[in-house]
Amino acid sequence: MNLQEKLIQKINLKTKPLGSLGILEDLALKIGLIQNTLTPELKNPSMIVFAGDHGITDEKVSPFPKEVTFQMVMNFLQGGAAINVFCKQNHICLKVVDAGVDFDFEPTLNLIQRKIARGTRNFIIEKAMTEKECSDALEEGRKIAQDEFNTNCNIIAFGEMGIGNTSSAAMLMHKFTKLPVEVCVGKGTGLDDKGVQHKIEVLNRASEKHNVQIPFDVLQSYGGFEIAMMVGAMLQAAELGMIILVDGFIATSAVITAFHFNADVLKNCIFTHLSDERGHKLCLEYLKVEPVLQLRMRLGEGSGAAVAFPIVQAAVSFLNEMSSFEDAGVSNKD
Amino acid sequence: MNLQEKLIQKINLKTKPLGSLGILEDLALKIGLIQNTLTPELKNPSMIVFAGDHGITDEKVSPFPKEVTFQMVMNFLQGGAAINVFCKQNHICLKVVDAGVDFDFEPTLNLIQRKIARGTRNFIIEKAMTEKECSDALEEGRKIAQDEFNTNCNIIAFGEMGIGNTSSAAMLMHKFTKLPVEVCVGKGTGLDDKGVQHKIEVLNRASEKHNVQIPFDVLQSYGGFEIAMMVGAMLQAAELGMIILVDGFIATSAVITAFHFNADVLKNCIFTHLSDERGHKLCLEYLKVEPVLQLRMRLGEGSGAAVAFPIVQAAVSFLNEMSSFEDAGVSNKD
Repeated sequence: MNLQEKLIQKINLKTKPLGSLGILEDLALKIGLIQNTLTPELKNPSMIVFAGDHGITDEKVSPFPKEVTFQMVMNFLQGGAAINVFCKQNHICLKVVDAGVDFDFEPTLNLIQRKIARGTRNFIIEKAMTEKECSDALEEGRKIAQDEFNTNCNIIAFGEMGIGNTSSAAMLMHKFTKLPVEVCVGKGTGLDDKGVQHKIEVLNRASEKHNVQIPFDVLQSYGGFEIAMMVGAMLQAAELGMIILVDGFIATSAVITAFHFNADVLKNCIFTHLSDERGHKLCLEYLKVEPVLQLRMRLGEGSGAAVAFPIVQAAVSFLNEMSSFEDAGVSNKD
Repeated sequence: MNLQEKLIQKINLKTKPLGSLGILEDLALKIGLIQNTLTPELKNPSMIVFAGDHGITDEKVSPFPKEVTFQMVMNFLQGGAAINVFCKQNHICLKVVDAGVDFDFEPTLNLIQRKIARGTRNFIIEKAMTEKECSDALEEGRKIAQDEFNTNCNIIAFGEMGIGNTSSAAMLMHKFTKLPVEVCVGKGTGLDDKGVQHKIEVLNRASEKHNVQIPFDVLQSYGGFEIAMMVGAMLQAAELGMIILVDGFIATSAVITAFHFNADVLKNCIFTHLSDERGHKLCLEYLKVEPVLQLRMRLGEGSGAAVAFPIVQAAVSFLNEMSSFEDAGVSNKD
């Protein structure tokens, strides 16, 4: 028997009706395969929240002012945001990265300072990044994942903060999946119907502006610094055999991008949460993956991944700790 | 402002887009209302697993032999079942009750021994319980919930184990919701299509056998001892202002029964999980409630409730610990 068959047998011989742990069984199998073992373990889980600003906010695609990006970074550092609360509850080590916030942070802050620039350019006018900025962001992302791996972490979640980044994510989704802009665009942090209509018009114009096909060019044209860093971090984490916990719409747009760089990245990804942001369901269908949670959340920051962590842990726990029918002296099905 | 309005305001002023925590916001509101406070707390969560046998197994409605009920009770006591693993992971105190297992347990076991009888009667021939057995089971259930309350527990989950109990639950669902037997019957622990068809035929005959309307009579005719005890425990827990974590199909059949005794019980119930057992979705629709998780699980034992506990905790955590826009100095929506 190969490892996959052995894992399935181990799962099936646990004292429970066949298949009755549903998604937990799928997760146990996936994690066993990622770690290449019948007894996987989740070590030092960490959450990296990448923050960046977006030139496209000049087009009024978000109901929140751009300043909220740096204000929320400060909120993360002070422990008051949703992601702080959920990481604390579930014993996940939270780190915050300045990937490209339009604000000068004090160097003494407990912040991983990798600022590429003070926000991307407005991609309705020009490419969001220069070629160098894009490759620098990818490279910094890779280094950050490597640093986590070096601290004996084998499961990493990615969150993000960036007013305007649902526009960036929608463009990546649109260009990679070839789905029309209309179905890639949602309310973001809370646009009304008129606001969504305006966002669709802006992004349709942006789509025509840059005729790009190669994955790197798509990312350079439409990405955010936080998204590009996430792409680099995901590629590195997958190469290192780490488990990647994917949050909602923005994080999934990074997975779709990473997938076009290297399709193998998907083997390491657990999609923790179906976001209420419109495009996300179609992204998951495009990748042919099933989310763990469906809580109608649409907050970002990695919040869905942090909330889902105990469910992922439950999959590992049952695989390692439950008795088999034989061990427990329980009669199996007739 | 009344408490409900104050809770909604508190939730809405947290540093997040309005409504972006989805079901967690609904849970925070519900828990605040149950505990009558803006700062709820989950104290000493406990999981009570009630076990009982069922005379209806004589009709071959389950693919597992009846002995599995006591064997699984022993598995619970030895720590090897799914519910042990999930309760341990989430720091939930697990207790196991012999409500009516067809086995003589040693009195020295770490088991709450409240056996009403060694299994119910076959309800295709006669009522499952005598009137006294049914009222005794309800009363014992009430005492067990009261005992938990007395140990400073304010959140209680109920699980069950009983080969044949999806038949009992399907009959309760059918009689209370008036839905046809066909849609109330599922695969249970793993019947094939022919087995499900046979189960439907058996339960259609059982439905004609007892012409009952009054909730107590329905429970007496078709209930299991573990289900009746759960009904009593739910009624008591609700009267005491405790939060009730409802697991899957069997536990929900107990809620539907309790709801017909006293509709107020629903105010205290959190439906943790949509089971893959066919009837469950319709039960939740009948009660007009939304489940927290949808993991395709169908194991029973309280496993869905145990796995969902950290999500419920997350709702309380964000309500108590997240900063408001004002506290964090974050700009709110334009």
